Amino acid sequence: MKFDMIARDPSSRARRGRLQTAHGTIETPVFMPVGTQATVKSVSPDELEDLGARIILGNTYHLYLRPGAERIARLGGLHAFMHWDGSILTDSGGFQVFSLAKINKIEEGGVVFQSHIDGSRHMLDPEGAMRIQGHLGSDIAMCFDECTSYPVTYDYAAGSMQRTVRWAARCKAARTREDQAVFGIVQGSVFSDLRMSCLEQLMDIGFDGYALGSLSVGESKDEMLSVLETLAPALPEGAPRYVMGVGTPEDLVEGVRAGVDMFDCVMPTRNARNGMLFTSSGSIQIKNSRYADDPEPIETGCTCYTCRRFSRAYLRHLFMAREILAYRLNTLHNLHYYLALMAGMRDAIEKGTFEEWRGRFYSLRDGAAEAQGGTGDAGP
Amino acid sequence: MKFDMIARDPSSRARRGRLQTAHGTIETPVFMPVGTQATVKSVSPDELEDLGARIILGNTYHLYLRPGAERIARLGGLHAFMHWDGSILTDSGGFQVFSLAKINKIEEGGVVFQSHIDGSRHMLDPEGAMRIQGHLGSDIAMCFDECTSYPVTYDYAAGSMQRTVRWAARCKAARTREDQAVFGIVQGSVFSDLRMSCLEQLMDIGFDGYALGSLSVGESKDEMLSVLETLAPALPEGAPRYVMGVGTPEDLVEGVRAGVDMFDCVMPTRNARNGMLFTSSGSIQIKNSRYADDPEPIETGCTCYTCRRFSRAYLRHLFMAREILAYRLNTLHNLHYYLALMAGMRDAIEKGTFEEWRGRFYSLRDGAAEAQGGTGDAGP
Repeated sequence: MKFDMIARDPSSRARRGRLQTAHGTIETPVFMPVGTQATVKSVSPDELEDLGARIILGNTYHLYLRPGAERIARLGGLHAFMHWDGSILTDSGGFQVFSLAKINKIEEGGVVFQSHIDGSRHMLDPEGAMRIQGHLGSDIAMCFDECTSYPVTYDYAAGSMQRTVRWAARCKAARTREDQAVFGIVQGSVFSDLRMSCLEQLMDIGFDGYALGSLSVGESKDEMLSVLETLAPALPEGAPRYVMGVGTPEDLVEGVRAGVDMFDCVMPTRNARNGMLFTSSGSIQIKNSRYADDPEPIETGCTCYTCRRFSRAYLRHLFMAREILAYRLNTLHNLHYYLALMAGMRDAIEKGTFEEWRGRFYSLRDGAAEAQGGTGDAGP
Repeated sequence: MKFDMIARDPSSRARRGRLQTAHGTIETPVFMPVGTQATVKSVSPDELEDLGARIILGNTYHLYLRPGAERIARLGGLHAFMHWDGSILTDSGGFQVFSLAKINKIEEGGVVFQSHIDGSRHMLDPEGAMRIQGHLGSDIAMCFDECTSYPVTYDYAAGSMQRTVRWAARCKAARTREDQAVFGIVQGSVFSDLRMSCLEQLMDIGFDGYALGSLSVGESKDEMLSVLETLAPALPEGAPRYVMGVGTPEDLVEGVRAGVDMFDCVMPTRNARNGMLFTSSGSIQIKNSRYADDPEPIETGCTCYTCRRFSRAYLRHLFMAREILAYRLNTLHNLHYYLALMAGMRDAIEKGTFEEWRGRFYSLRDGAAEAQGGTGDAGP
C-alpha cells in the first residue's frame, strides 16, 4: 500500500491524498459504502462503479458466519465472490461482535460469542480475525479491537484500550498476506489522554494506517469533534486516517476539516431503505404525502441514475407499495449524494478553497431550512 | 395498431408476426414481463430494455387503487411515470378483482369489491375499466371481463360468458383513445362450445386482438391444451392472439405451436424471488445446499447479466442472507430465460424448423432429468 499527499488546504487540516492498494487507486478523502454481506445492499457492483465508488467495506463478522471465510477463499476471495474489482477494506469483526452478537466472555485471549443468526457459539481473537481477513483477501484489514459503548467509565475504557493495544500487536504478528495493509484502531472512548496513549502505543507497533473507533456511538457531537481535534494533530502525517462508522454529511465535512482521509457508514444505504433521501438542502422523507403528485426529481440538477429518470411521485409510489426497486433507486441516490459530497471536498482542497466550500455547504442547507421555517439546527 | 405476418411454420400452427403499437414494434410470439405496480418487480426499465423486452404488462386493478389512475395521467401516463418507453398492455382489472379483492356484488352493471390494501369499497365496470386504461395510456387495453375460477358449472360459465360478451360491447363503445388498441377476451371455462360461441360474438363486435382468459387457473394441462387447440383454428388470422397469465416454459412452447402470439405470466419473476431458476435442462432451487460451493453460473453459456458475473455459490449466499440483490439477479436470469426462449422460437419459425426446435427443447430437458435420475415428467 502506498499513500501520497496531493494537496493541503491552507486554512484547515483538510488534506487531499491518494491511496494505492492491490486493487487500484483511491482518491482521498473518501467515503466507503458498506457491503456487509458481500453486497452493498440493493445495488450491483457495476452500479457501485458507475457511482464512482473505488473502495467498499466488507464485514468480517457477517462473512465469517455466512457464507464462511474459507468458503469465500475457495471461491477466489471476496473480490471474485461478489464480482467487485475495486478495493475492499474489511473490519475486524470487533464492532459487530460487540453490537450484534450475544457476548459470552471477553478475555485476554479473545471473545466468545453467540451468532445472531442461529445462536451457535464462536470465538474470535486477534489471530482469528487476521486469518479470516486473509481468507477474504481484502486490501486493508483492521485490527481486532474492543469497541466500547457510550457512556463507559474511565477505568473500563483504560483497561479495554490497553487490551486493544495488546490485541493490535498480536494482529500485526498474525498478518497472513503481503498484499494486505493493516490498520490499527485507536480506542479510549471520549477520554483524550486514553486516546493519545493508545495512538502512541499503536504508532510504536507501527501500522499502515490509523483508525478512530467507537465514535458516533452515542456521545455528543461536541465530544466527537473534541476527540477528532485532539487526535488529528498527533496522527502520523504519512499514513491514512480513518474514522470508523461515521457519519452524517456534517460529520464527513467536519471530519475532513480535521484531517480525516477515510469514512464508512451505513447511513446513506440504510436511510435509503427507510425512505430518507439526502439533498444539499437537507433530507426528505419520500413517504410524505406532499410528494404524491410531485413530478420533480429528488434533487433538481442531481446527476444520479434515479434523479435522471424518476420523479418523487414515482419514488413515493414504489416506497408505499414496498416495491424492491424503491430500495435500489433510493440507495443509488443517497450513495451518489455521499460520493459527490466527497468529490466536492476533494476538489475544494485541491483548489485551496475548502473553507469557502464548507460555508456554502452549510448555507445551502440552513437557507433551505429557514425557507421552510426550519430551525436551522445544522450550523457548525 | 398494425399486425403483420412474417412467417408460418410449415408443420404446426406456429406463426411469426410483427405488432406495431404507439410505442414501437414487437416481434411475436412474445412474452410480456408483468409490471403489476408500475414496476417489473426488482428490475429497472433500463434492465428490461437490455433484456430485450419490448412490451410489458401493467395491472389496472393495482394502479387504480395505488397510486391512482388519474394521478398517473396527471404525471404523464404510465409510460412516463415508470420511465418505460416500450409498449404496455394493461389488463382490465377483472382478474385481480376476482382473485385478490373481496367481491361484494357481481351485477350486469359491474362489480362492487373491497380493496385488498385497505378494505375500501369500489365499483369497477366496463366503462370504468376503459376510462382507467385511458388514463394509464397503455398501448393495448383489455376488455373488462369476469374470470371464472375452476371448476365451474356449465350453467354458471354460460351466464358469465354472455355477460362478458355484453361487457365487451360496452368496452368497445367506451373506448377513450385512438392510440390504444382494445382486445376482447374469450371466456367459457373448459367448455369448447361456450368458448367458440364467445369468440364468434366477440368477432362480430370486432376487436384489434383476441385473448383467451381463465386458463392456467387450475384445469389440467390436457384441458388447457384442448381449449387452445379447439380455439386456435377459429381465431381470426389477421389479429394477434393472446393467452393471458400463461405459463410455464412448456406452456409457451405448446401455445406457440397452437398459434398463440402473446403471453404474460408472473412465473419467471415470482419464482425468481422464491429462488427457483430456469435452465434449459430444468429448474433449480438456488437455496439447495449443493450450490453452496458451486463456482459455476446458473447455466453455463447463458448470456444474462447474472450468469456473466456471478456464481451459484454467490447467488445462494445472497438468497440465504435475504439480500435485496438476490431478487434482482434471479429475476434478470429468469426473464432472460423466458425472453430467449421466445427468441429461439421466433427464429425457428422463420427458418421453418419449429418442430425440430421443439424436439430439442424437450430432449435437453428430459435428457438432463434422466441424467439426474429424474422421472422425465416433461415429455409432450
